[in-house]
Amino acid sequence: MNEPDKRSVLLPLNPIGIIHSPFADIAGMPIQPGGARGIRGTIEVYEEFRAGLKDLDGFSRIILIYSFHRSNGYALEVKPFLDDNTHGVFATRAPKRPNPLGFSTVRLIGVDGETLCIEDVDVLDGTPLLDIKPYVPEFDSYCSEKAGWLDAAGGRVTSFRSDERFR
Amino acid sequence: MNEPDKRSVLLPLNPIGIIHSPFADIAGMPIQPGGARGIRGTIEVYEEFRAGLKDLDGFSRIILIYSFHRSNGYALEVKPFLDDNTHGVFATRAPKRPNPLGFSTVRLIGVDGETLCIEDVDVLDGTPLLDIKPYVPEFDSYCSEKAGWLDAAGGRVTSFRSDERFR
Repeated sequence: MNEPDKRSVLLPLNPIGIIHSPFADIAGMPIQPGGARGIRGTIEVYEEFRAGLKDLDGFSRIILIYSFHRSNGYALEVKPFLDDNTHGVFATRAPKRPNPLGFSTVRLIGVDGETLCIEDVDVLDGTPLLDIKPYVPEFDSYCSEKAGWLDAAGGRVTSFRSDERFR
Repeated sequence: MNEPDKRSVLLPLNPIGIIHSPFADIAGMPIQPGGARGIRGTIEVYEEFRAGLKDLDGFSRIILIYSFHRSNGYALEVKPFLDDNTHGVFATRAPKRPNPLGFSTVRLIGVDGETLCIEDVDVLDGTPLLDIKPYVPEFDSYCSEKAGWLDAAGGRVTSFRSDERFR
């Protein structure tokens, strides 16, 4: 096997755009796209990256990777919105992570120049966008996987709203 | 809406661990987990993050977000492995992206201390791992989405292997 990279590796990232949504505050938000059905937002991709959007309009869903820019610090054990027990942060989708990277699969409604119209948006307004990837069912869809503690709590996701805990 | 963050925002990331796989070279690899069925690897999570793994073993798939650490620079239009036409990089899963973030959904076989045994691994050996998230079908599985240019090419993913182009 290759020699592992040194621990001190830092990966500096620059936003490629910004996500706009109706959610100005971290409390009261839907907690996953499943709780944000029909909620629209837009993505403003910075002009220098516009050529990278070619043919994206053929996809009906896209994966957004973004920064949890309003989350400060991290915890290794968290009490997530959908359960009263603590879990390791890597067994949750909570934002206070060692690397505060968010990940949402949203519906792509349309592309107009550098502006994307999206739906099922569970993201805070003003969120810095780091990457867009096409959602491909053949690569990304696994219907019958075990979802640990979330299997019991999952049914609540469409109605649940966030609170102050991950500010 | 909130004031957009300044363009100059940098997000420094530190690896939380390292991914080990049988793939020592960027050429000849499977190009998605679908082409890597049954291929095993391990994840070594650094000891300081071990508490974050609590209850992860209840999930049968996990999402890995990692750095494409052997990919240099980026292109806004790329000719991906599965097609002879160029597409915008954001309409592909190619590694030469403005922010070189990789994303794979792999099978979790077991957790032993800080070591995770995983399967369906399409990742280069020695890859710095940035985040682990549980795969939750209710949040992440969308079976019948349009996949643009990949709808025609998708059937080839299980047999196709990478070449030199994204070195």
